[in-house]
Amino acid sequence: MMATQLTADKQVQEVLDALKGKTIKNVFFVACGGSSALMYPSKYLLDREAKTIESDLYSSNEFIHRNPVKLGKDSLVILCSHAGKTPETVKSVSFAKSKGATTVALTHELGSPLTADADFVLRYEWGKEANAFNTNYSFMYQLVMGLVSIYEENDNYQKMLSSLDQLQTVYDRALEQFKDKAEQFGHDYKDEKIIYTMGSGANYGIAYSFAICILMEMQWIHSHAIHAGEYFHGPFEILDKDVPFIILLGLDETRPLEERALKFSKRFGEKLVVLDAKDFDLKEIDESMKKYIAPLVLNHVLRLYAEKLADERNHPLSERRYMWKLEY
Amino acid sequence: MMATQLTADKQVQEVLDALKGKTIKNVFFVACGGSSALMYPSKYLLDREAKTIESDLYSSNEFIHRNPVKLGKDSLVILCSHAGKTPETVKSVSFAKSKGATTVALTHELGSPLTADADFVLRYEWGKEANAFNTNYSFMYQLVMGLVSIYEENDNYQKMLSSLDQLQTVYDRALEQFKDKAEQFGHDYKDEKIIYTMGSGANYGIAYSFAICILMEMQWIHSHAIHAGEYFHGPFEILDKDVPFIILLGLDETRPLEERALKFSKRFGEKLVVLDAKDFDLKEIDESMKKYIAPLVLNHVLRLYAEKLADERNHPLSERRYMWKLEY
Repeated sequence: MMATQLTADKQVQEVLDALKGKTIKNVFFVACGGSSALMYPSKYLLDREAKTIESDLYSSNEFIHRNPVKLGKDSLVILCSHAGKTPETVKSVSFAKSKGATTVALTHELGSPLTADADFVLRYEWGKEANAFNTNYSFMYQLVMGLVSIYEENDNYQKMLSSLDQLQTVYDRALEQFKDKAEQFGHDYKDEKIIYTMGSGANYGIAYSFAICILMEMQWIHSHAIHAGEYFHGPFEILDKDVPFIILLGLDETRPLEERALKFSKRFGEKLVVLDAKDFDLKEIDESMKKYIAPLVLNHVLRLYAEKLADERNHPLSERRYMWKLEY
Repeated sequence: MMATQLTADKQVQEVLDALKGKTIKNVFFVACGGSSALMYPSKYLLDREAKTIESDLYSSNEFIHRNPVKLGKDSLVILCSHAGKTPETVKSVSFAKSKGATTVALTHELGSPLTADADFVLRYEWGKEANAFNTNYSFMYQLVMGLVSIYEENDNYQKMLSSLDQLQTVYDRALEQFKDKAEQFGHDYKDEKIIYTMGSGANYGIAYSFAICILMEMQWIHSHAIHAGEYFHGPFEILDKDVPFIILLGLDETRPLEERALKFSKRFGEKLVVLDAKDFDLKEIDESMKKYIAPLVLNHVLRLYAEKLADERNHPLSERRYMWKLEY
């Protein structure tokens, strides 16, 4: 009996079908802030899986002004803006098209400016009601693993689809599992003025997102994401018993970097918040895809940590002093 | 009369001569901390100049564990370690060679572990007595612009060499020009607990290096480098009148990002240290190369800022609590 062939989201499948006849030499991941951070795992995936397709990731305005000379008709530019209104990401669509590139725009808002000129639009779900299979991280993986599957011999596409198909179950269970720890985190760290985050490989974008979007933007707490491998070449000198670090441990090939960073941090640090993907129950996920799924689950759990921190600090995640309030 | 043809440093020229017959599809920049940061401008240069050569930059252990599937016989891996003893960078040489790649190792120490297995070794000068033409940043540019010149039609190589030939003169003049400002910086910021840095394009590595090597490692001051384009998508919410930022303005295509970040910062920040490459006298530098040379001069001037800060804080730049003192 033949195994059932799973299919990607219909919108993603349309992109893949259209790309089958085209030559794609390089992929550019283009977005800002949190929308950029969610593309880091896909860059990691391409580095690991794609034998011929090159890839680069740039913040939207860096992309436009850097104007990489390799951007051209054989380029695929994948963009994302949640509300579809980020000016530099919207501008990146027309910029990329003017160079002959093919553009795929991810957004939650159909009809937003981002979607106006894009060759393809992927409208993802969002929020408590969304099914994880139809959310931004999942669409990214469906798209990039799909790309590898149509251009190169690679049998991981079905494994990825079946894993993403079970993602919501994993998410729900992880949230339940980490409920108390998230509350404890909010309680213990509510008075901190600075909290660093750390990770490597497919996790680095998750650490980056938590640092710049949650801590700096939404909580006005000093932060930044330290790469676990770079830690030993400068940043670790800042470690002390009163300096908080959120340390992520994933399941990808770079886990030894995160383990080494944690081991050292434990010698001299006392405010260490460790989220280890080994503690997740990922039984529905294909064994070889766990490394890619882990950062998504870490990110999902960290959102709960953010909510609990915001509650304890009486500082809603929606509060801003500059964003949405000023022209800049 | 024919213009005199300038030549690269003899060691660099040997690499370029040897590479002429080879196919190079991609370049990997591999190092840690400050040695990694000094490669960022070369990645920027390749993005701007190289039509066919792809490039990626990874911290050494990320490179080994990520193990990019595209690393192979058509890869050139450029590595750097000042003392040539950084274990993960040394290991990256044999790792890259095991994949069939060609390796070029930059170091100040001939005979160091990094040089043992590398296909090519570039021994650069260092310190007060060094001529800028023979230092690490210059060797990087000679090498990558040389690569583009041998593989693609590109007439910028001679312009780069003539500019680097005059770099020491520019360095000396800039130091003299910024002497008082550096002293003022040391005096004004000696009591700060956190200082962010910011830049984009070819400058980002300079901002990163100052944040992790000078402030975090050598002064134990909280810091991190914020990308000027990402600033508006999270990090800028941390801005307040008492939060110090060192903002770099360069001369490359991404300068508008840095100008925008500065303009906004001036509205709500009061502790802004601005280093603008437009203030440098770069008359000996070829007009089209100024954008590449600017970050090197910014970096050189920032070293003086670091020295003055260290003096005022009675905290020598050589002081460490973990590095060189412990096994880790």
